[in-house]
Amino acid sequence: MAYLQSMPKSETIKLREKHIGAACQMFFRSNPLKIVRGIAQFMYDESGERYLDCINNVAHVGHCHPHVVEAGRNQMSLISTNNRYLHDDMVILAKRLVKTMPEPLSVCFFVNSGSEANDLALRLARIHTKRKDVITLDHAYHGHLTSMIEVSPYKLNLPGGPEKPEWVHVAPVPDVYRGKYTYPMDSKSERELGRMYADEVGKLCRLAQSNGGGVCAFIAESLQSCGGQIIPPESYLKNTYKHVREAGGVCIADEVQVGFGRVGTHMWAFETQHVIPDIVTVGKPMGNGHPVAAVITTPEIAKSFADTGVEYFNTYGGNPVSCAIANAVLDVIEEERLMERAFRVGNHLLNRCEGLKHRHSLVGDVRGRGLFVGVELVTDRETRTPATAEAKHVINRMREEKILISRDGPDSNVLKFKPPMVFGIQDADRLVDTLDRVLAELDGARISKITLEVRVTPIDDASSKDTLRSNSKQALKAI
Amino acid sequence: MAYLQSMPKSETIKLREKHIGAACQMFFRSNPLKIVRGIAQFMYDESGERYLDCINNVAHVGHCHPHVVEAGRNQMSLISTNNRYLHDDMVILAKRLVKTMPEPLSVCFFVNSGSEANDLALRLARIHTKRKDVITLDHAYHGHLTSMIEVSPYKLNLPGGPEKPEWVHVAPVPDVYRGKYTYPMDSKSERELGRMYADEVGKLCRLAQSNGGGVCAFIAESLQSCGGQIIPPESYLKNTYKHVREAGGVCIADEVQVGFGRVGTHMWAFETQHVIPDIVTVGKPMGNGHPVAAVITTPEIAKSFADTGVEYFNTYGGNPVSCAIANAVLDVIEEERLMERAFRVGNHLLNRCEGLKHRHSLVGDVRGRGLFVGVELVTDRETRTPATAEAKHVINRMREEKILISRDGPDSNVLKFKPPMVFGIQDADRLVDTLDRVLAELDGARISKITLEVRVTPIDDASSKDTLRSNSKQALKAI
Repeated sequence: MAYLQSMPKSETIKLREKHIGAACQMFFRSNPLKIVRGIAQFMYDESGERYLDCINNVAHVGHCHPHVVEAGRNQMSLISTNNRYLHDDMVILAKRLVKTMPEPLSVCFFVNSGSEANDLALRLARIHTKRKDVITLDHAYHGHLTSMIEVSPYKLNLPGGPEKPEWVHVAPVPDVYRGKYTYPMDSKSERELGRMYADEVGKLCRLAQSNGGGVCAFIAESLQSCGGQIIPPESYLKNTYKHVREAGGVCIADEVQVGFGRVGTHMWAFETQHVIPDIVTVGKPMGNGHPVAAVITTPEIAKSFADTGVEYFNTYGGNPVSCAIANAVLDVIEEERLMERAFRVGNHLLNRCEGLKHRHSLVGDVRGRGLFVGVELVTDRETRTPATAEAKHVINRMREEKILISRDGPDSNVLKFKPPMVFGIQDADRLVDTLDRVLAELDGARISKITLEVRVTPIDDASSKDTLRSNSKQALKAI
Repeated sequence: MAYLQSMPKSETIKLREKHIGAACQMFFRSNPLKIVRGIAQFMYDESGERYLDCINNVAHVGHCHPHVVEAGRNQMSLISTNNRYLHDDMVILAKRLVKTMPEPLSVCFFVNSGSEANDLALRLARIHTKRKDVITLDHAYHGHLTSMIEVSPYKLNLPGGPEKPEWVHVAPVPDVYRGKYTYPMDSKSERELGRMYADEVGKLCRLAQSNGGGVCAFIAESLQSCGGQIIPPESYLKNTYKHVREAGGVCIADEVQVGFGRVGTHMWAFETQHVIPDIVTVGKPMGNGHPVAAVITTPEIAKSFADTGVEYFNTYGGNPVSCAIANAVLDVIEEERLMERAFRVGNHLLNRCEGLKHRHSLVGDVRGRGLFVGVELVTDRETRTPATAEAKHVINRMREEKILISRDGPDSNVLKFKPPMVFGIQDADRLVDTLDRVLAELDGARISKITLEVRVTPIDDASSKDTLRSNSKQALKAI
């Protein structure tokens, strides 16, 4: 059929510009990639060029995993209808998901996307608590829906973003490197920092109570992804959940990005913080690219919802194909021991990135859990000034080297690695070796720029360290 | 693998009760169906029993159409990633969709469900008009998301439903059979009725303006599905859109249920009303069961969105598999001339249902366009009193006859037919013949009940027509 024929990339770009909303995000907009094939941790462009995919956490068990493709294909040819009928795949998936969760998380709702899951989570919380106020973390992103943008400072903080509703309270990100309370600058123990950040949520709980409404819910990614690959300090969620529950609110763990074993030690990232949420949302990796997501909650909260008498219906949510695919993804995670692999390869990757810190002053912080890793670039380690332009440069250079990484955080200076879980030691080595080389080029660029500055600026103490640093910072802004 | 083994239905029910939210809708809850297979317009339960599917408008080109399954399967094994990369299938789908729409509807956004599409539509309208107030139709349903329930009186009207926000204005459903203005009771021409209903929207526009905010958007299904298969009178949308636009609002046509040729004469139901919306949302049939949906709008509105600088990203929206499947659905609609078929079979079905009116006084109204048909049951044709219990009985009896139909409308008394578009003349005949038989049983039941009433009630004029009718009504309520 005509539509199956491929067209030149220029034609694809032309059609995209004409018929797809310009607001839609695109990587490398000035020279975008056309990706036509994916296998495991690799993606291929239209010319057959192979890219190492270090960011596609959706392709969790690897691009086009044959077991997942087969499951989708089989079920597609059997039946795909809505969940107003019974189907084994749905209840089996529910049972298997629940088995991975701590008690009393045992009731599922299936939906099509992480956004839909978070929307339903908030709706459940509202109905259960009969309250409206929500506490969210600064820079958090919970989805593209109207209701989610309202609790996503990642969008609210943008110049053209919508206004924050009065019932949304923004707590500081528990970022111990560049947040409100840092380590070791503030000379506190990690546990103490966790308590201090949690107390900030406690303050907001009291604020919401004094406003009259009281807290409905606290929603947070268990490890904040869009905020810049943030690993909260020990005890943070434990203390935070305590504050929220004492105020009568429920705790929602958004595991859409970080769930399904990515952290290596546990299936769910909230487990690394030793808490049990009231509502958990899962998505992206769940279908390895297929649109499927879920909300898992307690029988008590599910009952509050049912008691309204208002039925819930989601046309595709929990359809047999989505469930068969999600079941197949769980099979692969188990059979290929991908969680253990994430632990092993993730630790190797972290250690190797840690090594970069000794070689490049640009590398300010390295953090992560399993295959969720962030490398924060700074122009000055003392002031921890974000190296935004440098991060952008690194992303583009890595793409030239056929390695796809991205950056995030409020200053877009955190390099982000969240590869498919089939990522191997060799892949990690290639990633870090190349990054090492690219950072070295940047060191070189910095030196030449600094020399240039020194040459053109007739300052007496040009050779002093301070001026050199200040000049170098100015110069780097221009890169 | 263990999970692929089927389990006894009782076990499926037990697991569903334990692990799936009780708020989730289920057909025939006391004795639900377990559906394991679908082919064209038929579904099969676990015992191999075959059901004629008269309601699954999502399985638009027929359950498990091989061309669609093949397209999904092929693309699933090639690549499924997000639309931050270029892909031909997405731009081709956009081009093809746009080709079916009138100018200036030419810019697409791909999402995963009708709910997500309507949410984005409203967001686009808000950003473009910088206003908030929305006019919606009574009994309308636009999706399960928080933002959609706010504009869905179908949910707001329920006893346990949430409160209607003040910025939502509810216009009467343009139901000429049992609505505010009816035909021929009010002795008006259809065109005049259309104007009268549109004037109701005009009044709300003025109300919104006097409140200070002004109208952001009018959102309506082009033919209201959840409201009870409503066919608006001629000139309704034309006059309504005029009012809304004069007030500075935009017009959103929700084609999620009624689009893709179902009405037989046109690809989109709004075309039957000779209007051009500013934003169109499409969904359900688009992926024949696969979660894919879209928003199509004007370059002007898309530009307002892009101009905010806030990028839009939907993880699965427009992924290559969803687009390949949607392209395959368009292929089948074209190649099998399903729109023409909907016209031919739909007209036959309508005519045959019209015939039932002469044989059963329960049948109050028969209406439809193509394969979107409603049969409204009433206990009294003069007062047009809804026959709710009878409609429920009919649904259950038809299920016993292995025919799946449903009911809708504020009084749940409208039998609803919206079968896969491969539905044939023979299927229509079987549906109507069986319905004829079931209605005849009900006539019998009515008579025996009436006799019973007459026997036990010693009224003098028991034989008079009036008392007989009143008794019969009472008796029927008890059925």
